[in-house]
Amino acid sequence: MYQTFKATTRPGDGPPRLEQLRAQMAAEGLDGFLVPRADRFQGEYVAPADERLAWLTGFTGSAGFAAVLADIAGVFIDGRYRVQVKSQTDTRVFTPVPWPDTSLETWLIDALPLGGVVGFDPWLHTVAEVQRLEKALGPRQIALRPVANLVDAIWQDRPAPPMGKVTRWPDALAGSSATEKLSMIAAALADAGHDAALITQPDSLCWLLNLRGGDVRHTPLVHAMGVVRRSGALDLFVESDKLGDVALPKAVTVLAPDALEAVLASEEGRIRIDPATAPFAAMDALSAGPSRVVEGPDPCLMPKALKHPDEIAATRAAHLRDGVAMVRFLHWFDTKAPQGSLTEIDCVRALEGFRAETGALREISFDTIAGAGPNGAIVHYRVTEDTNAPVRPGQLFLIDSGGQYEDGTTDITRTLPVGAVGDEERIAFTQVLRGMIAIHLARWPRGRTGAHLDALARAPLWQAGRDYDHGTGHGVGVFLGVHEGPQRLSPISTVPLEPGMILSNEPGYYREGAFGIRIENLVVVAEAGPIPGDDARNLLCFDTLTYAPIDTRLIMADMLSGAERDWLNGYHGEVLALLGPELDSDTAAWLTRACAPI
Amino acid sequence: MYQTFKATTRPGDGPPRLEQLRAQMAAEGLDGFLVPRADRFQGEYVAPADERLAWLTGFTGSAGFAAVLADIAGVFIDGRYRVQVKSQTDTRVFTPVPWPDTSLETWLIDALPLGGVVGFDPWLHTVAEVQRLEKALGPRQIALRPVANLVDAIWQDRPAPPMGKVTRWPDALAGSSATEKLSMIAAALADAGHDAALITQPDSLCWLLNLRGGDVRHTPLVHAMGVVRRSGALDLFVESDKLGDVALPKAVTVLAPDALEAVLASEEGRIRIDPATAPFAAMDALSAGPSRVVEGPDPCLMPKALKHPDEIAATRAAHLRDGVAMVRFLHWFDTKAPQGSLTEIDCVRALEGFRAETGALREISFDTIAGAGPNGAIVHYRVTEDTNAPVRPGQLFLIDSGGQYEDGTTDITRTLPVGAVGDEERIAFTQVLRGMIAIHLARWPRGRTGAHLDALARAPLWQAGRDYDHGTGHGVGVFLGVHEGPQRLSPISTVPLEPGMILSNEPGYYREGAFGIRIENLVVVAEAGPIPGDDARNLLCFDTLTYAPIDTRLIMADMLSGAERDWLNGYHGEVLALLGPELDSDTAAWLTRACAPI
Repeated sequence: MYQTFKATTRPGDGPPRLEQLRAQMAAEGLDGFLVPRADRFQGEYVAPADERLAWLTGFTGSAGFAAVLADIAGVFIDGRYRVQVKSQTDTRVFTPVPWPDTSLETWLIDALPLGGVVGFDPWLHTVAEVQRLEKALGPRQIALRPVANLVDAIWQDRPAPPMGKVTRWPDALAGSSATEKLSMIAAALADAGHDAALITQPDSLCWLLNLRGGDVRHTPLVHAMGVVRRSGALDLFVESDKLGDVALPKAVTVLAPDALEAVLASEEGRIRIDPATAPFAAMDALSAGPSRVVEGPDPCLMPKALKHPDEIAATRAAHLRDGVAMVRFLHWFDTKAPQGSLTEIDCVRALEGFRAETGALREISFDTIAGAGPNGAIVHYRVTEDTNAPVRPGQLFLIDSGGQYEDGTTDITRTLPVGAVGDEERIAFTQVLRGMIAIHLARWPRGRTGAHLDALARAPLWQAGRDYDHGTGHGVGVFLGVHEGPQRLSPISTVPLEPGMILSNEPGYYREGAFGIRIENLVVVAEAGPIPGDDARNLLCFDTLTYAPIDTRLIMADMLSGAERDWLNGYHGEVLALLGPELDSDTAAWLTRACAPI
Repeated sequence: MYQTFKATTRPGDGPPRLEQLRAQMAAEGLDGFLVPRADRFQGEYVAPADERLAWLTGFTGSAGFAAVLADIAGVFIDGRYRVQVKSQTDTRVFTPVPWPDTSLETWLIDALPLGGVVGFDPWLHTVAEVQRLEKALGPRQIALRPVANLVDAIWQDRPAPPMGKVTRWPDALAGSSATEKLSMIAAALADAGHDAALITQPDSLCWLLNLRGGDVRHTPLVHAMGVVRRSGALDLFVESDKLGDVALPKAVTVLAPDALEAVLASEEGRIRIDPATAPFAAMDALSAGPSRVVEGPDPCLMPKALKHPDEIAATRAAHLRDGVAMVRFLHWFDTKAPQGSLTEIDCVRALEGFRAETGALREISFDTIAGAGPNGAIVHYRVTEDTNAPVRPGQLFLIDSGGQYEDGTTDITRTLPVGAVGDEERIAFTQVLRGMIAIHLARWPRGRTGAHLDALARAPLWQAGRDYDHGTGHGVGVFLGVHEGPQRLSPISTVPLEPGMILSNEPGYYREGAFGIRIENLVVVAEAGPIPGDDARNLLCFDTLTYAPIDTRLIMADMLSGAERDWLNGYHGEVLALLGPELDSDTAAWLTRACAPI
């Protein structure tokens, strides 16, 4: 199993560790110290050695940070984690702070005297973050001071940094070799008039060099940074032991991670750095040297987002394989669940089992979200042995999961009835489904962003006075991060959608204490192609990647338009044609029923 | 008639005037001179004294500018005017430049040598515009030099500046007195920590002081500028003869327009200036003095956009009155047009006649757009005696018009069949109608902008591979500008929609050389109120202002969803109930048929 259901922290560990940290702060002459959840790569998953926030506070959520002062320690958490933080931390010594409602700046200004000094580890905070804090705190005479990490100083049994083995990702899946990609990036730097760029995002380097690794859970990342030059040469800062005998292009020079600062300090010419993701320490190192820093996006960000046709073909194969596992799970669930003996954990185990039986599963894309009844309304619910709920007849069951295969990353959500469910649930399900179909059917002119399309997914819910408090979709990688930028379907998106971008399409509806609904397919932006009577406007559209049935027993058919019904029936026809031949006869018979036109 | 159909310029006048201008340039040592269409108020309509671009070049479009160099004179026009510019200017001496495809900066850099000097009238260009030009031209060693207007120097029979009589706009319509509004603005300045604000927009001052004037066509503006202070005092720079005996609040001091520079130069403290609309000359005057300039929006911009409930009630009355005139026109058209003897100008005259017969018409909101058949596909078509086309059976006829009444400003577009028309036209009409209904039906959470909703209006066309190349809607004033900001329904909108904002809802479809379709109602943003089964999210919606039938003979009823059909039938029920009692029996009988449910 790639997923565990045990609690990994204890609230009682926090108070003595907090005391030790405060002693360190006093010794350093600091009035505060920041403990982010992030590591130096700013990724969604961090290695055990980087779980400083969880070690200190007990809080294990995927986002947040602590600000420790002499007399108060704020744990900043967003809306997803307001309940969880209270069960994981000792709230007698840690104070949950609702974030971003309360910003760190505001909180520090309120809590600290003039002349206060706050320490931070410059590797764990981005350039943009430190600039923003300095701008807000400077006028209030509160100083930020980069220091060696105080948590590391007191963390006795801190795990070693990860040493995941690096492997080549086949050029045949990538469509371009590392050498070709290096040339492309070099040309882009030359075009922009830049001499070099700092790359601090592991997924950018994995994409660039066609490498995959194992340094964190759920995403095959190699912890590494790099400096790429307009010559096409790349200095790669990575533990060389991880590389084994993996062949790298001649243009790549492998250096130890701790050589980065010296290289940056001696860099010449114009060097690009992405303030949104680069550690402040890197900017600091550059400032000490002769280079001229230019702020701009990671040069791999956009080329990585525009998937090569071979990558899209690869991920299609992964999605069909994953679809077979999903259908086997759905059949299993449909047979077992109405008997009333399953728990959420049973379902998570079963689904991972079906994925493992493909023989190709490398990891799961993220901890499966499996919520029965009211637990389905907790948007980022992760079942543990403490919360594990029975799956009861009459309930909705929401399951959001994905697999990492060598040829692709999947992410799929289905909401399932356990036996017969009420009309309230079916009406809401149909509203969500109509929004999801609107995205599948969308065609739009170039230049539009996810912000322009987001309302199409929400309109059916808005009509009913409802909404969901998350984005409609996020970018997805190919055997890389299940969440990647810069594309997204969200009211705050600013990046035009372009062919080759993979996104999730996942509207939802959540009724607290009652049920949750989400339906999610992955899609890829494509040229829409001509249709009769059109105006040759070369519109874009979403092609479908995810194939698995959507439960028609939850649909109020008379709420669908003809076009919506046609889409659903057409989709189910494709599901049956693509997956049916891969199934045993029992499952195939079940799928035929599940895909019957409505 | 408020509209004329005669050409007002002759191409032949341009070349000798251009020669004179070049002589002026040479005398001043300039390599170029800019002639914008804008006056110092940057409004949509300019007074005859400010028609410098038309006087010089012959081009009378509502947007554009000329850049005159020693050997080339570029006339920059957007996509609406590519054809018109060729018929109005002598293209042997004037070179049409497609704008914004080619920017002024790029064109000047290409055309001028290093060290070139371009003169401009600092009153006719905004702060933002000059800053943008200087940023682009500076590095290429091309200088901008503010000078007295060279066109004015050679324009012998230049009309006098407008002296439209100023009248009070009743507090009962405005809902707030000028004194109350001055207090509100003063409080907002104090909140922002600003000591004063420069107001250069006539509609801002008309709103603030509950005044209306007559300095330009179609919009009851008073040409004036002002400096409002956090004390609530206002220096009003306006020709005092215009004011007559109009009473102003005690806090207002009337000064001559040419006193503005001296006042700005002696202003102290922090003064706000809106770079998007303030003339560069004002910034220049401030820079010479002791004040500290803060760039920020005109303080009246947002309060003006959030209409008072009394303003909304007033404009509702204007819309019903205008609806009666529209229905009389539609009935007249439906009776006459199929006989084949009408021209576009006949229709414009008739419609203005029906509006005039209300006894309350102060002006038309803009020159009526009346396009038969292919002319309907020219988005900003203005009929002249030269283009006047017959309205033929089998064609579509597009008519976009509005009235200025003391209690409101209207803007309505209807597309009408002349007898029986083809299914192509009806299919396209129904696609446009579905988009228009989607906006009428929209409900959305606070914080969304017009950019988030725009796709709802386009989706039915996008589905068919079609689109329209204009925004979905613009802001509208109350007995003020028919185009006002900052709200809009457009992919580039950045301003959240808030209750009280009035917008047009006007999707369209245009097939060049064949037909044009646009359907337009005005709407006002409102609280949506609760509906059964909702989640108390306090959504917003659009309330309808415009009432007039939408031609059901153009609708393919089976393309509409149940909700769309319900909206249309409900709307027609309201049209009949609201307008029917105001009509003679023949027209009422026609309206009853026009509003029959489908």
